[in-house]
Amino acid sequence: MGSIDTNDEAYSKPLPTAFTPLDPEDFRKKAHTMVDFIADYYKNIEKYPVLSQVDPGYLRTRLPKAAPYLPESFETILKDIEKDIIPGMTNWLSPNFFAYFPASVSSAAFLGEMLCTGFNSVGFNWLASPAATELEMVVIDWLANMLKLPKSFMFSGTGGGVIHGTTSEAVMCTVVAARDRVLEKIGTENIGKLVVYGSDQTHSFFHKTCTLTGIFPCNVRIIPTTQESNFSMSPVDLRRQVEADVAEGLLPLFVCATLGTTSTTAVDPVSDIAEVASEFDMWVHVDAAYAGSACICPEFRQYLDGVEKVHSLSLSPQKWLLSYLDCCCLWVKEPDLMVKALSTDPEYLRNTKKNGSSSVVEFKDWQIATGRRFRALRLWLIMRSYGVVNLQTHIRSDIQMAKMFEGFLRSDPRFELVVPRTFALVCFRFKPFKDGYDESDLESLNRKLLDRVNSTGRAYMTHTKVGGVYMLRFAVGATLTEESHVRAAWALIKEVACVLLREIL
Amino acid sequence: MGSIDTNDEAYSKPLPTAFTPLDPEDFRKKAHTMVDFIADYYKNIEKYPVLSQVDPGYLRTRLPKAAPYLPESFETILKDIEKDIIPGMTNWLSPNFFAYFPASVSSAAFLGEMLCTGFNSVGFNWLASPAATELEMVVIDWLANMLKLPKSFMFSGTGGGVIHGTTSEAVMCTVVAARDRVLEKIGTENIGKLVVYGSDQTHSFFHKTCTLTGIFPCNVRIIPTTQESNFSMSPVDLRRQVEADVAEGLLPLFVCATLGTTSTTAVDPVSDIAEVASEFDMWVHVDAAYAGSACICPEFRQYLDGVEKVHSLSLSPQKWLLSYLDCCCLWVKEPDLMVKALSTDPEYLRNTKKNGSSSVVEFKDWQIATGRRFRALRLWLIMRSYGVVNLQTHIRSDIQMAKMFEGFLRSDPRFELVVPRTFALVCFRFKPFKDGYDESDLESLNRKLLDRVNSTGRAYMTHTKVGGVYMLRFAVGATLTEESHVRAAWALIKEVACVLLREIL
Repeated sequence: MGSIDTNDEAYSKPLPTAFTPLDPEDFRKKAHTMVDFIADYYKNIEKYPVLSQVDPGYLRTRLPKAAPYLPESFETILKDIEKDIIPGMTNWLSPNFFAYFPASVSSAAFLGEMLCTGFNSVGFNWLASPAATELEMVVIDWLANMLKLPKSFMFSGTGGGVIHGTTSEAVMCTVVAARDRVLEKIGTENIGKLVVYGSDQTHSFFHKTCTLTGIFPCNVRIIPTTQESNFSMSPVDLRRQVEADVAEGLLPLFVCATLGTTSTTAVDPVSDIAEVASEFDMWVHVDAAYAGSACICPEFRQYLDGVEKVHSLSLSPQKWLLSYLDCCCLWVKEPDLMVKALSTDPEYLRNTKKNGSSSVVEFKDWQIATGRRFRALRLWLIMRSYGVVNLQTHIRSDIQMAKMFEGFLRSDPRFELVVPRTFALVCFRFKPFKDGYDESDLESLNRKLLDRVNSTGRAYMTHTKVGGVYMLRFAVGATLTEESHVRAAWALIKEVACVLLREIL
Repeated sequence: MGSIDTNDEAYSKPLPTAFTPLDPEDFRKKAHTMVDFIADYYKNIEKYPVLSQVDPGYLRTRLPKAAPYLPESFETILKDIEKDIIPGMTNWLSPNFFAYFPASVSSAAFLGEMLCTGFNSVGFNWLASPAATELEMVVIDWLANMLKLPKSFMFSGTGGGVIHGTTSEAVMCTVVAARDRVLEKIGTENIGKLVVYGSDQTHSFFHKTCTLTGIFPCNVRIIPTTQESNFSMSPVDLRRQVEADVAEGLLPLFVCATLGTTSTTAVDPVSDIAEVASEFDMWVHVDAAYAGSACICPEFRQYLDGVEKVHSLSLSPQKWLLSYLDCCCLWVKEPDLMVKALSTDPEYLRNTKKNGSSSVVEFKDWQIATGRRFRALRLWLIMRSYGVVNLQTHIRSDIQMAKMFEGFLRSDPRFELVVPRTFALVCFRFKPFKDGYDESDLESLNRKLLDRVNSTGRAYMTHTKVGGVYMLRFAVGATLTEESHVRAAWALIKEVACVLLREIL
């Protein structure tokens, strides 16, 4: 050991005698305080602006440049959270949050997450945490069952699934499985021939994920969509592009269909896309991050029609199934292909006792990283605490509120529903005049409307631009949102719109 | 909307009237119960076997095949956690856990994680959660400061850092940054020329991560290490391999040096490796996942000597800085290269108001996924609650206990310290006879010793095999471990060894 750096004043201070960072009674006391802090935050959340009103750099100027040498009290830190952190929060859990896709939560999931954290099990393989592995297999099958997925995606059938943190990771793992399946036949040196397909409405992660795996950026095809098809991918256009690529000597690898695109919740025709893909032996993935959850209701299950023909499906309960971040379920029909592409077998992780048992799934070989958290607890607590019935109620209630907002829009001729509503997102714009306004004027008017609404702190919406049209997105889904909040947001939008109208007239 | 599936009996049951999954008072009550549940688990943790004694499939046979249609009570679920989950836990937080690298935790980090979950902010960009972005910048600089990293890695200097979930993700992002920097010059079609380097002691994630990014498997070089150099990478051997690759027309891209390898905590010579890499314009990453934390103590800072010459460094506070999973800090000297490789800019994520501000960091462009959790809270609470002084005490205390165990081994001639101890891991084997035993006999003897110790449930160790030698790993670092536990583990090992000895004599 080297000598202590005595030039540094800090190190000459006396050392505390004992350090017990996990004393159960100290833990108990402080965690109880934190429970009350968070419960009060939820109770009072409407007092805070939804969208944080701070300016860039606000926090870095308030905090010290270095960590303290000596401990600070929990009370001091809690005060600072009130004073320094909460003002810089965009409050995603506010009932007035209608931006992006809201991230839904629940008491049950919080409890599951507390347990997951509390156990801190690092379940990279079965032996390192049998319960974590097996409960994940159970809840993945439960959710598959709720979605009426075919047995070919279930552990109780011939497939299986895994909980990842994010859709990006889930899709990366499937792209790599697809990639290596093909490269094994044609040789790694032909990686430049592999082509992947999405639409111009596929989430931005897709291009990034594919190029991360070595797919050449020039080989990421973006099929244009149109207003006529409500921005869903055309199987005809897909086929045309695939045929052109084959004619060029390229090799179609992977197509990503989306169930509920980010901009407008467009639904790609899964079955037809799978038909095209099948002819060319392509891997089909369905990204159902947001709208997949709706398919637990029989009246929405139709959107998954054709799923039996695809290779993999991902769905993020963090979006609409009350799970808190981060949680993305991935089902695959041929887990062996993924395991082959992602497995490692270093000596220090080998199970002495349990090797060779066919019931042992090693989830490290189903994901990018080695370590993993016990995320299944959250889904288990959600499904058991609420039952399928309440989860269906929850989906229907959000959709009902979105329908109500749609009704408000339709009743006011100054507003336009730009895209038909399918789930709980309403895409609209303010269009007070029939004529005399071009697209760029309308865009500027709606930008102003959005900025002013958001800067009140009383509601938060976001925007998108699809088919050249700038539109506002009103996404119902924050867990605390009730009809009254939707009504208030509509009143606010109208109020701001009236002011804007007076200014331009 | 479709019709409700009336054939399904479940759907004919009456619907509950109201569903409020985040009622603050219900949340408060149940979360308090869960706090007590976890505090009691910590208090009683020694009652549970460290290594779970269940057999594969134990849980799947106990649980129903499908999620319940109707809600179940929290009390029922808690009982099932006691009955079904805990028996299947390998208890990572047990003070008798000496396996892998332990995952360290603390009350402060738990509180930070509760807050992170509670806020559920999805901080993909600054506007979506200013506090999350800025606090991350602050704590990353604080930790850099504690490690005495050069300003070139700090936001307050010319670099910066980010909190990822795992080392795999961190290294993947740096490999891609390095890859794209080179491919931009030589063209994507030359991806097959890129070569990466690690040693035979580099963690198994490295090969997987590199091939995930499209580096050809045949271009992942593994520099062999030897017992003579304590299994650290030889810069001479590295240079020889690099020169051979260059002579073949290949392009050396990336080298991963490890500070504290997983098998034996070997330390690669960062400075010398960086010298070799510099000549060939290679990116150097330092994986300091485990042992980097020790460098907050001045007497261990020497192991980071030369870090000023490298491009990136990762360190996992989840391993030794009390942070719970999942937490890996990555620092980079040229964030622009990473952002260039990982950025996306879809319309629906554009910040209207804050664009163009130089103080705005968009962390989605520093990682694989779009969404991200507010992980910085944990590190902030750890650093403030304990101060640098206690974190140093914690590191020194673990090392002191490992030294004590080393002393026990040295005092008993039937045991052999296989590799010198550097941090808090001791690699040893039972070698009761001077002669007449070959390596495979010793391996078999030590396998038996390990299995028997672990199957008592009173301690859990793992093994590795390095340089052909099978050895046991005794890793001190579980937060609740005290000297008495190390003494008890040593007594247990000796006891089991004696029984084994009687059997073979």
